[in-house]
Amino acid sequence: MTDFTATKALFDLPEGIIYLDGNSLGPLPRATAARVAQTITAEWGQMLITGWNKAGWMDKPMHVGDRIARLIGAETGHVVMGDTLSIKVYQALASCLEMTPTRRVILSDTGNFPSDLYMAEGLCRTLGQGYQLKTVAPEDVLEAIDDSVAVLMITEVDYRTGRRHNMAELTARAHEKGALAIWDLAHSAGAFQVEVAAGGADFAVGCTYKYLNSGPGGPAFIYVAPRHADRAIPALSGWQGHEAPFAFDLSYRPATGAERLRVGTPPILQLAALEASLDIWDAVDMTALRKASLALTDRFITGIEAACPTLSLATPRDHDARGSQVSFRHPEGYAIMQAMIARGVIGDFRAPDIIRCGFTPLFIDAGDVDRAVEIIVDIMQNNLWDRPDYKTRAKVT
Amino acid sequence: MTDFTATKALFDLPEGIIYLDGNSLGPLPRATAARVAQTITAEWGQMLITGWNKAGWMDKPMHVGDRIARLIGAETGHVVMGDTLSIKVYQALASCLEMTPTRRVILSDTGNFPSDLYMAEGLCRTLGQGYQLKTVAPEDVLEAIDDSVAVLMITEVDYRTGRRHNMAELTARAHEKGALAIWDLAHSAGAFQVEVAAGGADFAVGCTYKYLNSGPGGPAFIYVAPRHADRAIPALSGWQGHEAPFAFDLSYRPATGAERLRVGTPPILQLAALEASLDIWDAVDMTALRKASLALTDRFITGIEAACPTLSLATPRDHDARGSQVSFRHPEGYAIMQAMIARGVIGDFRAPDIIRCGFTPLFIDAGDVDRAVEIIVDIMQNNLWDRPDYKTRAKVT
Repeated sequence: MTDFTATKALFDLPEGIIYLDGNSLGPLPRATAARVAQTITAEWGQMLITGWNKAGWMDKPMHVGDRIARLIGAETGHVVMGDTLSIKVYQALASCLEMTPTRRVILSDTGNFPSDLYMAEGLCRTLGQGYQLKTVAPEDVLEAIDDSVAVLMITEVDYRTGRRHNMAELTARAHEKGALAIWDLAHSAGAFQVEVAAGGADFAVGCTYKYLNSGPGGPAFIYVAPRHADRAIPALSGWQGHEAPFAFDLSYRPATGAERLRVGTPPILQLAALEASLDIWDAVDMTALRKASLALTDRFITGIEAACPTLSLATPRDHDARGSQVSFRHPEGYAIMQAMIARGVIGDFRAPDIIRCGFTPLFIDAGDVDRAVEIIVDIMQNNLWDRPDYKTRAKVT
Repeated sequence: MTDFTATKALFDLPEGIIYLDGNSLGPLPRATAARVAQTITAEWGQMLITGWNKAGWMDKPMHVGDRIARLIGAETGHVVMGDTLSIKVYQALASCLEMTPTRRVILSDTGNFPSDLYMAEGLCRTLGQGYQLKTVAPEDVLEAIDDSVAVLMITEVDYRTGRRHNMAELTARAHEKGALAIWDLAHSAGAFQVEVAAGGADFAVGCTYKYLNSGPGGPAFIYVAPRHADRAIPALSGWQGHEAPFAFDLSYRPATGAERLRVGTPPILQLAALEASLDIWDAVDMTALRKASLALTDRFITGIEAACPTLSLATPRDHDARGSQVSFRHPEGYAIMQAMIARGVIGDFRAPDIIRCGFTPLFIDAGDVDRAVEIIVDIMQNNLWDRPDYKTRAKVT
């Protein structure tokens, strides 16, 4: 059983802040700075080029991937780190389209994170030949899976509403119709126990700088189901995914398994930061995490709804249909979030009207929820958000 | 005039090592660890999500790109950081092919770094429709540029031989024949003053962990000529290259200029490491650098050739046809390099027979060259390389 009072002490949280934005950028583990400094001075500084062997840099994308594998229910050896989530989406999509050559439709939903849609759009444009991205409302996805669909590309938890799709059900339907399924776990990995293998996912992708606390720009991951691992030919066929990168052959031959999804030189400093965070994650009981997360989100919903009638809940009440965030809608959501931030409650705003708060039991407890509710209630009951300076939008919101 | 004795003191070089592999992984600047620690603790730790605005993280890919621009002779605002070199090659290639829709050939040479060729091969496979990669010997490139060529993709300095192509001449020929030209500056940026604008390059790409000392897995850069900047539609169309990423539109609209070549969330820790190194580079007089580099490479060639008749020079003697490395061929090159490393002279081996040594005046001086020559001469004259343990190959060589 994980002791979440103990895990909270492992994070460096600024004084006076209640951080409900770990689902956008996770906070800093106390061990990270020293870990990265060690990689810089003792590894890079002293080993220089020999660090690729001596410090194990070359194997890190697969080794670190194995630590992510537990959190997402993947088979060992089938998750590899690298690049950004958008790049990994592109790789998964291109592989799936190649495996379903007679079909032309990528199916997604309008709740998907826009970058996934943009990458799909770009791939379709590059491919030509009638390839197209089709999007439907999140609740209409199941019905929209038909024989024209080559691949279903879904983000499991909606970045705005926190609504959670049923991975097993949608994937089963996709397979029944002869389509493949790619799952984006950006808001799932570290939010609850994901089950990519049991859920039948063909590919899964995700980022590590949200719930997994790897820091700004931390590397993404990609999972490929064992049945495809030696079959999928990477569209982004870089040398690190070659069977023998240091043979410097002139022609590409994919490496065995998930390793073929590597592209270029791995970001060793960002990986070191991720490893420091995974030292915490390795010990987390995911059942306990989910239980604590649901208790926090329920507590927040109850507290806000009891006193703020103008905030309208965007997140499903049903536990099974929810991730680890709670979102409320309000036409002045942007200004309200600025007022919250000014009072030390950091969440984020998502256009057009979403106030989004993430709850991570690793560093958020019931007392934090109660204080956040108290502050939001004060802001709403006294219209403290109604100031011109709260309505001026920053570049990143 | 740059004082290279002073710059040498800015690097943390291990005692007793002569590091001739800065062209593979540059050594650690003394200021890097503190700079990265500051980014981790004061920015990520204290600002959390607000770091994207407050610490300027969101603008770093363009701001840092402007510091690279001087080194490669690019116009300000036309270089952007991100991803790996292989990904940037893919973006440049896809953009060029889209701008030359009636042609099907990517022309490169057999001296190009294999990953560039692999990415081209993968793109051709994805595109189908008769797209093909054609490679010729490095000295045959000029003649091979004909009306079938859509895009010329060349690494300016050959990673094995150190042979330098004539960017202006090849680019002019490409343009004359109606083709575009992409230059990979992996072994040029920081080796000498590159002139992408004056040389007419359409795109240029490069990495920062070699001569530019950004550390293992540092981000790549991409340059797009101003005449194409608002015309090239990125194949890898991620949200960070969107005109308004935080509007979360469902459809992609490219940002203005080079910024559209951004893909996903930038690697802030790796960028911080690069910035620490660029603090040194900003003050380097590139004419003085080139002069010092040629003096070092000449000195090394002269020293080795005078005493090691079995080592055969692979690098051109002509200054204009050379980068900042010197390579010798020997059938037992791998074992010779292991013997050198055992004696503290770190270069690298490149299959099948290349002993490669990079010379960076920022931290290598004439005394280092003389000591390296002395050690290599001892190894060669006394066959000290002829040991079974030096012939067993490591994963990364």
